[in-house]
Amino acid sequence: MTPVRPIRATIPLDEARALLREAAVPLDRTERIAIADASGRVVAQDIVSTVDVPPFDRAAMDGYAVIAEDTFRASADDPRSLRAIDRVFTGQISSTTVTRGTCIEVATGAPLPDGADAVVMAEETDRKGDMVRVMTPVYPKQHVGRRGADITAGQALFTPGIVLNPSRIGALAAIGLVDVLVYAKPVVAIASTGNEVVDPGQPLEPGEIYDINRFTLSAVVEAHGGRAQVHRAVPDDLDSLARAIGETADCDILVFSGGSSVGERDLLYDAIDRAGDVIFHGIALKPGKPTAFGRIGTRLVFGMPGYPSSCLSNAYLLLVPALRRLARLPEHQPMTVRVPLARRVISTTGRHQFYTVRLVDGTAVPAFKASGDITSMSHADGYIEIPAQTDIVEAGQTVEVKLF
Amino acid sequence: MTPVRPIRATIPLDEARALLREAAVPLDRTERIAIADASGRVVAQDIVSTVDVPPFDRAAMDGYAVIAEDTFRASADDPRSLRAIDRVFTGQISSTTVTRGTCIEVATGAPLPDGADAVVMAEETDRKGDMVRVMTPVYPKQHVGRRGADITAGQALFTPGIVLNPSRIGALAAIGLVDVLVYAKPVVAIASTGNEVVDPGQPLEPGEIYDINRFTLSAVVEAHGGRAQVHRAVPDDLDSLARAIGETADCDILVFSGGSSVGERDLLYDAIDRAGDVIFHGIALKPGKPTAFGRIGTRLVFGMPGYPSSCLSNAYLLLVPALRRLARLPEHQPMTVRVPLARRVISTTGRHQFYTVRLVDGTAVPAFKASGDITSMSHADGYIEIPAQTDIVEAGQTVEVKLF
Repeated sequence: MTPVRPIRATIPLDEARALLREAAVPLDRTERIAIADASGRVVAQDIVSTVDVPPFDRAAMDGYAVIAEDTFRASADDPRSLRAIDRVFTGQISSTTVTRGTCIEVATGAPLPDGADAVVMAEETDRKGDMVRVMTPVYPKQHVGRRGADITAGQALFTPGIVLNPSRIGALAAIGLVDVLVYAKPVVAIASTGNEVVDPGQPLEPGEIYDINRFTLSAVVEAHGGRAQVHRAVPDDLDSLARAIGETADCDILVFSGGSSVGERDLLYDAIDRAGDVIFHGIALKPGKPTAFGRIGTRLVFGMPGYPSSCLSNAYLLLVPALRRLARLPEHQPMTVRVPLARRVISTTGRHQFYTVRLVDGTAVPAFKASGDITSMSHADGYIEIPAQTDIVEAGQTVEVKLF
Repeated sequence: MTPVRPIRATIPLDEARALLREAAVPLDRTERIAIADASGRVVAQDIVSTVDVPPFDRAAMDGYAVIAEDTFRASADDPRSLRAIDRVFTGQISSTTVTRGTCIEVATGAPLPDGADAVVMAEETDRKGDMVRVMTPVYPKQHVGRRGADITAGQALFTPGIVLNPSRIGALAAIGLVDVLVYAKPVVAIASTGNEVVDPGQPLEPGEIYDINRFTLSAVVEAHGGRAQVHRAVPDDLDSLARAIGETADCDILVFSGGSSVGERDLLYDAIDRAGDVIFHGIALKPGKPTAFGRIGTRLVFGMPGYPSSCLSNAYLLLVPALRRLARLPEHQPMTVRVPLARRVISTTGRHQFYTVRLVDGTAVPAFKASGDITSMSHADGYIEIPAQTDIVEAGQTVEVKLF
């Protein structure tokens, strides 16, 4: 029997974060996808328009295309009368030319007819038969959307690194693109370790528990720009871990959960160490102390604690920043609320604490039950962080709750 | 020639929102989906556990299962010596019983062996061969995760209406569920209207423009709990609109864009009116004034302005709240920043204004170009809202920017 191997030294959370940041290199891999699927994705090309948007001068209002000079000094008391000689709707081109004393009825978006240089709004006219009385003057180009006013041919729209949102996808559509080159989503392989871990839906034998972490980790990964690749649960021995490492060679991040604590079978440290480099093992963090992090080739490897709530809080504090860096997404800004703490919280471990709370009547009520309880998190609304140096947060003190 | 039909009366935005809220009835339709796909979905059943979590008393730390009394008064100077008689890892059951003077090595998560009532942390022991020196006392049940401590059989976990997030999916996995009944996503049919609208990838004929709204609207719908169902562009005539209404009978929300302004061919009002009821037409909003909203059977129908930025700002202000109500999702809380306005904005239209801004050096710089310009939004970081009663927002005044 070999003795158990406690984690003798931990590093501060800030140091762990700095090491993570250094190790997490933004991915260069790209893929071309349909613009309809590109919301939230990161542009990997220079987007330069080859067309003018709009592609022609067009009416910006429903009304009448006129020669502006014909309307000068028009008023409700002294309207100018113009003869409507045609009408043109969107998608049509008028073959008629506007000359002095005439106008053409136009719909918003319709090409401005030849000869016209402005549009009078329908609301500012009064029509009887073909005669249109204009009650307000317009200046040249008024209510005209000019060719290229939105985007001109040759204009650079986006550069690599821009995150696409609905309006940016709209701009890609506006210039006629059907697809766009984006950075690939980091592939995150997820493997629960442990002989006791069973998939939901299976009966539990004595000593067995259901796999939770693969579900919580997958959901976090997918929400933060990654592609989760679930590996079957890995037995707690070095050969099995080595095999899992071999089988996930095509991923960018490999996340084991369980197997990184201090027992003899907590072999993850050794598994990473054999295949690559351990960067740190043990963080002054509660929960989440027995966390290993390293690199195998270009892959980042996390050894998360097996406890579901520890694994998940670690995912928020450590995995999400690394994943978003690989994905070239901006740092995550969780929604926060600032409320008074409902009762005193004592945190004398000397570790940075991730502390779950519920929001009740405008206060933050501690929701932490016991290390590992998933209901500590699933019945919480968010969490507060208590720095390692802080021992007590008093009731009534304002805390910043980061919402789940 | 029939005269153009201006919108003669508009209703305030608040009134439009109240009418929307009243018309948007949360959906009762449900579907059963795998828990792995359930993040962000709304639970439609009572979730009651049939099992205890954990299903057995287990070690909460790596260390030694002991009889607590054997450790009383132990200290570093005066350790208690216990003989290790077995070891048990996760997924194993020890066939050995802990008796006075003995202990069993346990890994975190391993079932607590018979006879033991507490666990001493590995860090607080010192081992030589079979002899384990315990340097800190433990009390009964210390470092033991008790059966059912997280969740007990019969416990109600979630009720209908709860939105699933990673930890809640973890709780479903913990009790062994493979799937969950959730409310169906509202189906949002999206149809651009207009003879001039062409899909990206096609060449543009004179007078034609690319369809933008179907892309922006789809992205918004998918981001807010809906399922976008893109209909092909609909020509601007009553028969085509009626046909599109018929073809989308299985949707929950039908969004037309274009065709709701004041020109003769702005027929959407008539199309809704014939098939159902127009609830409002015209909002004191800029952009977004020519917006129609109504109901056809159980379907909500929006007639959005055709201009891409007007259509999209309307989607944020009107469609998103209605969609989220149907989806039973909480009201959207956009991320906001409060910064000074970089230069004066004048808004004397008497309409509530949606005004795009860029964030530059900690100030909000107006990004509005011209009505309809997609780059007004795609090159902006967010927007401010200027109430109808406010004519001027001065430079330096703090504004709340809602981020895209």
